[in-house]
Amino acid sequence: MSGNNKSPYLTPIAGNGLLDRRLFLQGGLVLGAAQLVAGNARAARQEPAARPEWMSVPGQPFTLYGQPAGYEDEVVRYPSPNRQMRNSGASWTPLHMLEGTITPNGLHYERHHNGVPQINPDEHRLLVHGMVRQPAFFTIDNLLRYPMRSQICFVECGGNSNAGWNKAPSQAEAGYFHGLVSCSEWTGVPLSTILSEVGLDKKAGWLIADGADAFAMNISIPVEKAMDDAILALYQNGERLRPENGYPLRLILPGWEGVLNVKWLRSLKATAQPIMARNETARYTELLPSGKARMFTFTMDAKSLITSPSGGMVLKQGPGLYQVSGLAWSGRGRIEQVDVSADGGETWAPAELQAPVLPKAFTRFRIPWQWDGAPAVLKSRAVDETGYVQPEREQLVAAQGRHGFYHYNAIVTWSVDEYGTVTHVYTSEAQQADSDISIDAGWD
Amino acid sequence: MSGNNKSPYLTPIAGNGLLDRRLFLQGGLVLGAAQLVAGNARAARQEPAARPEWMSVPGQPFTLYGQPAGYEDEVVRYPSPNRQMRNSGASWTPLHMLEGTITPNGLHYERHHNGVPQINPDEHRLLVHGMVRQPAFFTIDNLLRYPMRSQICFVECGGNSNAGWNKAPSQAEAGYFHGLVSCSEWTGVPLSTILSEVGLDKKAGWLIADGADAFAMNISIPVEKAMDDAILALYQNGERLRPENGYPLRLILPGWEGVLNVKWLRSLKATAQPIMARNETARYTELLPSGKARMFTFTMDAKSLITSPSGGMVLKQGPGLYQVSGLAWSGRGRIEQVDVSADGGETWAPAELQAPVLPKAFTRFRIPWQWDGAPAVLKSRAVDETGYVQPEREQLVAAQGRHGFYHYNAIVTWSVDEYGTVTHVYTSEAQQADSDISIDAGWD
Repeated sequence: MSGNNKSPYLTPIAGNGLLDRRLFLQGGLVLGAAQLVAGNARAARQEPAARPEWMSVPGQPFTLYGQPAGYEDEVVRYPSPNRQMRNSGASWTPLHMLEGTITPNGLHYERHHNGVPQINPDEHRLLVHGMVRQPAFFTIDNLLRYPMRSQICFVECGGNSNAGWNKAPSQAEAGYFHGLVSCSEWTGVPLSTILSEVGLDKKAGWLIADGADAFAMNISIPVEKAMDDAILALYQNGERLRPENGYPLRLILPGWEGVLNVKWLRSLKATAQPIMARNETARYTELLPSGKARMFTFTMDAKSLITSPSGGMVLKQGPGLYQVSGLAWSGRGRIEQVDVSADGGETWAPAELQAPVLPKAFTRFRIPWQWDGAPAVLKSRAVDETGYVQPEREQLVAAQGRHGFYHYNAIVTWSVDEYGTVTHVYTSEAQQADSDISIDAGWD
Repeated sequence: MSGNNKSPYLTPIAGNGLLDRRLFLQGGLVLGAAQLVAGNARAARQEPAARPEWMSVPGQPFTLYGQPAGYEDEVVRYPSPNRQMRNSGASWTPLHMLEGTITPNGLHYERHHNGVPQINPDEHRLLVHGMVRQPAFFTIDNLLRYPMRSQICFVECGGNSNAGWNKAPSQAEAGYFHGLVSCSEWTGVPLSTILSEVGLDKKAGWLIADGADAFAMNISIPVEKAMDDAILALYQNGERLRPENGYPLRLILPGWEGVLNVKWLRSLKATAQPIMARNETARYTELLPSGKARMFTFTMDAKSLITSPSGGMVLKQGPGLYQVSGLAWSGRGRIEQVDVSADGGETWAPAELQAPVLPKAFTRFRIPWQWDGAPAVLKSRAVDETGYVQPEREQLVAAQGRHGFYHYNAIVTWSVDEYGTVTHVYTSEAQQADSDISIDAGWD
């Protein structure tokens, strides 16, 4: 196919073939992508193909609630159950098989401490008590009468990506490595409305949130966040919550560590001090090089991840033009910029951010890449609106030590070999050698 | 519960109790909503309830692909199959049971002309030919290499809401009356990219799009729209398309009539003139009072709908504070304003629009309403960024006559009686009496 190769955007703007993000945005451009469709062009000189078999028979009937195509049956969550208690643990969203920014409800990541309770919504109650003028129960019907708010935001487990602390680079696919994060439109009653309703004591500093699962999950939430943007969520992507995501009621704290977004929410008790629950002392804390533990690390820092191409994929069609596509997000607000490198971080080019760029939500970034067939090393680096820059792995390890387990948000590096095979690597050999822990403890 | 009723926002700003949209947005307000939780307040003086049974047993295990809660099994699409050909027709999205703006994929409306084909994506081809420099086939794998774009937008059937033309007001629930519209994040390759790739002839004015279903759906698309914002969609809300929504490839024309968003897209042929297919001549046209038919009415005009409370619902908890919530959308761009009336249109108050307000997408509007227990008449009226104002039914009928069948976008009126029962009414008795057609022909 003949191409108009005169576009100024076809000149690489960073090493190893990264092209200007505007390449695909200008109208009327013929890409130098003839090899992509050369085979097809030959085919097109023949007559159109015969009618496929599915045009010869009537199609399938209506369904009351639709399901994915059978051909997509490998696009599933990846469960990693606890060895002793198989209904507990986590399951990963297959980020590497998705595009756009919304996670479909069937693929939202899961994290359970004792399985998914089967709650009758007519019997479920939210008790709001403690340091309030008037304690109260709320039924789901009560809550449904209150004014609602919607927010598209991510929820991310504090333990997401923790294989990044491992000695050797994990070769799990991108989603099964970094997919304890998902992004939905959550709708429900602002928690501030309900706290006003019960008359929260001005001296209350914390809310102890309790879940109605068999684990009786509990954790402490600062009142400041509760009054800011917390949502008592009833709906997820338009429909009522899914059981594994807290049906019938879940606390959503946009941008904050997943464990605080308590599912199956049963009670909120206003207190002066945090409860020092297991999941804020023995778990969800980070052991620092000093030997002290960092607690209450609520906000999820900026992070990014190239989802395509990513670990386990092969650039089957050989050298040529590819789209590099990925996700970035920050618990502190909007993503300001994502830079991509194809030469292991020597040079960087800014990726296109898909509008709308929403605060505390997945932001899809994309950039064209002309792969020349030689080995390449792909990275992405997010910057959020506070100016925070996603760290390299060695920076993160230097700051946090090696016993963190939680809050791993370092730059992810994908190596592409001359066959187009993509693997996960650590940039520095030294980093691999001196690592001394293995994250293989499973999930309680 | 004691309430601080001093908020200036508790003074009605329009007839029959419509309150300022800012009532729920200000911090620290105690609503005058004591009656909502009076029963609960009594309960709260007792000890917290005993642990529910689901806290006494381990929960359910992980699922690879999640499903809605069993208690939500009535939240389904409503199929209206053709009597002679039961796999054809339409199925409605239950808008009255949803909140927020995203439609979950399992509930996206359907419109089929001969059922849902079961397409093997590895065998599917898109042929782009006709007035192009170089005709070409594209496999799904080819398309997946191209740069993508995502857009959250609605798709609406031209025949949506057509029971509005009926002589008597339909008493179907809001979604089963107006739910041939849904809103998703669509991701795919800009059609302009592919048309550049094949070298579209400057003299081509139309693209004839063909579907790979047994109906062999075809229709004409203006090149101008194709080059503007049309998407060759591969993903819907993050995951690959569902079969009933065009798997593996669908044309998305943001804001344009559903029938043009060709599913199971098989070929695009560039031509000088439209093909004058059945679905742009015998169907999807509107017979005007003059006897002429209006054709090529591509853009879906602004529309709004109160989804709660809406037809068939009952305000069970009696007089008091309610949230009026609904959806607005326009094929011409952003929704600028939605006004709500509780007195049948005598007075109006502006509703709050949930951010982000995106062009050609569902916009959720909400406004607080203090129902005094007397009969009330609720309406919503959308205004889009072009200044277009959603018409009253009598205006629409005066302009379009009674034989339109398609493009019904009049203001919807819900009557609330003294028992809180909500029914659909036409504002003018005269309108009911002189109607002479019944839309009961089913869908071919």
